[in-house]
Amino acid sequence: MKSGKVYLVGAGPGDPELLTLKAVRALACADVVMIDDLVDRRVLEFAPAARMIEVGKRGGCKSTPQEFIERLMVKLASRGSIVARIKGGDPFVFGRGGEEALTLAQAGIECEVIPGITAGIGVPAALGIPVTHRGLARGVTFVTGHTRDGSGPDWAALARVDTTLVIYMGMQRIAAIAAALQAAGMPAATPAAAIQHGTTELQRHVIATLATLADAAAGAVLGSPALIVIGEVVGLAHTAESAAPRLRTA
Amino acid sequence: MKSGKVYLVGAGPGDPELLTLKAVRALACADVVMIDDLVDRRVLEFAPAARMIEVGKRGGCKSTPQEFIERLMVKLASRGSIVARIKGGDPFVFGRGGEEALTLAQAGIECEVIPGITAGIGVPAALGIPVTHRGLARGVTFVTGHTRDGSGPDWAALARVDTTLVIYMGMQRIAAIAAALQAAGMPAATPAAAIQHGTTELQRHVIATLATLADAAAGAVLGSPALIVIGEVVGLAHTAESAAPRLRTA
Repeated sequence: MKSGKVYLVGAGPGDPELLTLKAVRALACADVVMIDDLVDRRVLEFAPAARMIEVGKRGGCKSTPQEFIERLMVKLASRGSIVARIKGGDPFVFGRGGEEALTLAQAGIECEVIPGITAGIGVPAALGIPVTHRGLARGVTFVTGHTRDGSGPDWAALARVDTTLVIYMGMQRIAAIAAALQAAGMPAATPAAAIQHGTTELQRHVIATLATLADAAAGAVLGSPALIVIGEVVGLAHTAESAAPRLRTA
Repeated sequence: MKSGKVYLVGAGPGDPELLTLKAVRALACADVVMIDDLVDRRVLEFAPAARMIEVGKRGGCKSTPQEFIERLMVKLASRGSIVARIKGGDPFVFGRGGEEALTLAQAGIECEVIPGITAGIGVPAALGIPVTHRGLARGVTFVTGHTRDGSGPDWAALARVDTTLVIYMGMQRIAAIAAALQAAGMPAATPAAAIQHGTTELQRHVIATLATLADAAAGAVLGSPALIVIGEVVGLAHTAESAAPRLRTA
């Protein structure tokens, strides 16, 4: 029996053209593709012969438990399958890829991680926002709006670190996050954006300030999945796009 | 005359297979490719008909001034050329892509940014290090070891922010950075790695602690370009690799 293997593949932020050549090669040699909810189904064109298993985990409803996904990967690879586990963004940036890699290592299964463009870089870029920029941001920090244990990041420390702040999965707590950052001394006028479905045909966004972001996002009925970007670099968003009816609530 | 355009293209961290499909498409339609020093020349196979201009900026010697690069892009595109400006990593993460996009916008030239895998994610992944991991790191911060004005980031604030810390271009100041982080309260035993030429055939690394990293890197004669990764997630580096002589000279 041939020996199995698992590729943990990042699909990038949404646009299927942001797949890497290495991801395409992994898909082409896979017997089984395990695909997350938020990954564009067009990537499956690169795996025409593979069996496809949906393992969606969209916040809350009808989700596939992480433990089940990991057991399934181990089972398939143990039986000799080449498995491509493809997920949005990068597997090692809020993607639980680290946990999956550990489970596979413990089971003695070969695992190769194929990085993807993380939403925190690719999505702002789609609006013309560079997450670092000379004179405006000397670094960038990625955090999630909440963690599994219910606690949040240390917003007070984040407010003081002087990097662009990119928040994944923060829409449900957007008002509380903005308030916490202001309470920690981040200026209310700091430019801020929320971007839903970035890099895809469904992309929508609002550009506002830290003080007005939550209301602007609510007014535009922006929901998850979306990314929040806070910092002076947000001021560099495309003038052309923001002049267009791109749903700009300033 | 056809109208020109500039693609600002991220080549990813080193491995040419980490190029995106979109980057390949931009290279294929380019009349001129402006290529940075650190980009693998194999990417030029995707632009067989294009004129190639080297615009290296390797720290210090024989560098092409940024202003010259920007003027050249404007000139070429103004004359109708499709220019693919390809650089290591992502154009908007310490890549000066933001400045180039602004210059092009001011000159009225169409510009499209094509994100790339940034070294700060792709290089640790090549060692099996996830920059975020449940229970170990609830976020990640990217900074540079120095800035053009000679000042550094606020290491004291960074030490307190409780995310994985990834430092680009920090090798020349590695001892001072490690000292500053410890002085700000980051434990001396925090796992830390330095990785040179990550994701390429030349990849070499050391895994140490915050206290021992500078000596370990010096002992292994690791130089630039290299990435520094500090945080508990470094402890997840491939067991196979870390069981082997810690200095892997591939």
